[in-house]
Amino acid sequence: MSRFLDACYRRPTDATPVWFMRQAGRYQPEYRALRAKYDLLTMLRTPEIAVQVTLLPKALGVDALILFADILLPLVPLGLGLRFVPGKGPLLERSLRTVDDIARLQPFPIEEGLGFVLETVRGVRAAEPDLPLIGFAGAPFTLASYALEGGGSRHYQRTKTLMYAHPDAWDRLMRVLTEVTAAYLQAQVQAGAQAVQVFDSWVGALSPAMYRRAVLPHLQRLFSRLADLRVPRIYFSTGTAGWLPDLRSLDVEVISVDWRVDLDRAWAQLGGPERVAIQGNLDPLALLAPRDVLREQVHEVLRRAGGRPGHIFNLGHGILPDTDPDQVRRVVDWVHEATLAV
Amino acid sequence: MSRFLDACYRRPTDATPVWFMRQAGRYQPEYRALRAKYDLLTMLRTPEIAVQVTLLPKALGVDALILFADILLPLVPLGLGLRFVPGKGPLLERSLRTVDDIARLQPFPIEEGLGFVLETVRGVRAAEPDLPLIGFAGAPFTLASYALEGGGSRHYQRTKTLMYAHPDAWDRLMRVLTEVTAAYLQAQVQAGAQAVQVFDSWVGALSPAMYRRAVLPHLQRLFSRLADLRVPRIYFSTGTAGWLPDLRSLDVEVISVDWRVDLDRAWAQLGGPERVAIQGNLDPLALLAPRDVLREQVHEVLRRAGGRPGHIFNLGHGILPDTDPDQVRRVVDWVHEATLAV
Repeated sequence: MSRFLDACYRRPTDATPVWFMRQAGRYQPEYRALRAKYDLLTMLRTPEIAVQVTLLPKALGVDALILFADILLPLVPLGLGLRFVPGKGPLLERSLRTVDDIARLQPFPIEEGLGFVLETVRGVRAAEPDLPLIGFAGAPFTLASYALEGGGSRHYQRTKTLMYAHPDAWDRLMRVLTEVTAAYLQAQVQAGAQAVQVFDSWVGALSPAMYRRAVLPHLQRLFSRLADLRVPRIYFSTGTAGWLPDLRSLDVEVISVDWRVDLDRAWAQLGGPERVAIQGNLDPLALLAPRDVLREQVHEVLRRAGGRPGHIFNLGHGILPDTDPDQVRRVVDWVHEATLAV
Repeated sequence: MSRFLDACYRRPTDATPVWFMRQAGRYQPEYRALRAKYDLLTMLRTPEIAVQVTLLPKALGVDALILFADILLPLVPLGLGLRFVPGKGPLLERSLRTVDDIARLQPFPIEEGLGFVLETVRGVRAAEPDLPLIGFAGAPFTLASYALEGGGSRHYQRTKTLMYAHPDAWDRLMRVLTEVTAAYLQAQVQAGAQAVQVFDSWVGALSPAMYRRAVLPHLQRLFSRLADLRVPRIYFSTGTAGWLPDLRSLDVEVISVDWRVDLDRAWAQLGGPERVAIQGNLDPLALLAPRDVLREQVHEVLRRAGGRPGHIFNLGHGILPDTDPDQVRRVVDWVHEATLAV
């Protein structure tokens, strides 16, 4: 059926599938042309535009599409407000400041708060029935830290002090966000998404002990809730090299690792190809290297994957804005050429 | 002789030694009183003030002092200029922009360029002959990335593109910085420092493969150069949980790990207490937790260290400005009480 979906289930494929986090984005001239006309939030909220952007990477030869959306979108119907400030990234208008703020937080009906995303999913599926579409959402910790810090953060001081000083409020916050995330991903799959990825982009700020105690149980509940959807579930995190073996307790088909680990060693720590598929893990900066160096780096990742079923080639994090689309296309070709079954 | 020095050599001690990265700094009212009168660069460059600041943590009961200095100071005599901009951190006036900039870079005589630091070392030793004094410097990669980026960085784009596209220029840059760092630490020891710590605070941005190829050989040369000094050598890095076993190839007495690893697991990956001492690894944010939670976290670190000779209690990175000095004092007391030989 599909290289990407087969690889998620660790079935043999004719070649290693490849896609890229943020493959629809600022590095593409077609994207920038749209961005010159619309602000980012408008692009995200207008299904016609979001469908068009989601489809852009088809031209690169990727094996899967990922929805054009933002992990922070659910914070809007949660009442926190969201602005994208050029040069500063996303900022919240009303971050969570008190335990009372958290007590007032309530899940919302997905169709009402995020219906435009579901509309985009339906639009992409109608326009492109052949390439699998990956839906996604932010992981509860990553959403919580944004909701508390109000934007990006260096030390996650508000987040960690809440976790330490008000464990009950933290637990409630994580429960609400887990509930929202589960419902959001269910709705995406019902609208047609054929796989889901959960992005825990900032969880590497924690210690392993904090992760095990205050994050992992919520992730376990989240992924259990997604089990009946019968689509591959991917968990992505960065900075978690110190506790990869703990991720074995997650009921997921695929673990996506960042570039700060050797892929073979990470896979072994996660239980190996007998247990879980692995996604990754080229450094996004390698796309800015000279062509020959980039090719070496791609082959290094493939060498460590060892051609075993269950490897999905990807970056260790999202494509950076200064990336040349030709380099992305080359990576797709090299991955396919190097792994094509003869 | 000294708990701290003994532990560096993995000799049994009467209690686990403890000190804190950035223990002389902004969280202290005495420091802030000085900072109200002088700008940071003046404080760093005036031995009388730097001696006074270095000695402040004595009141906390720590087992070692660390020089009040900044890892970026050597960039001044290297011709790059350095300003500390309130709210923005350190910025360079002339960052390295081209391969020619790197070709022109030359080591400098330490006594000439950084004599004030050596004067501070002598001053601290004269004022406090009993507590061991740790000298320090930035690691070559961390200095190089600052010199290239011109300040803090999120993606280390200039650094990595130089590493990829101009490996010879990168190698020259690392050689000059290794030479400067070795000479600087030698001079500190000659002036009286009784241990040295090398701070590789940003090297966790790399992949393990890049680290092994473009960083590790320079660190190996650096620490070999420091072997005849006959003082403990400490290597500190953050974000390197994915390749701790590679650090076994460093000829050092102590490895200092961040809080993103379990101390016992990290120690095992580094070769265990038979091979190397370990320093760490409380999350600096734990100092902002309620007293009981902080105590639990301290005991968790000690439990993982298992009372084996060769553990030096520390944080996983520097103390944060919002820390209450009383919390720091409590940690010192708890570490000593919990580990005191009966």
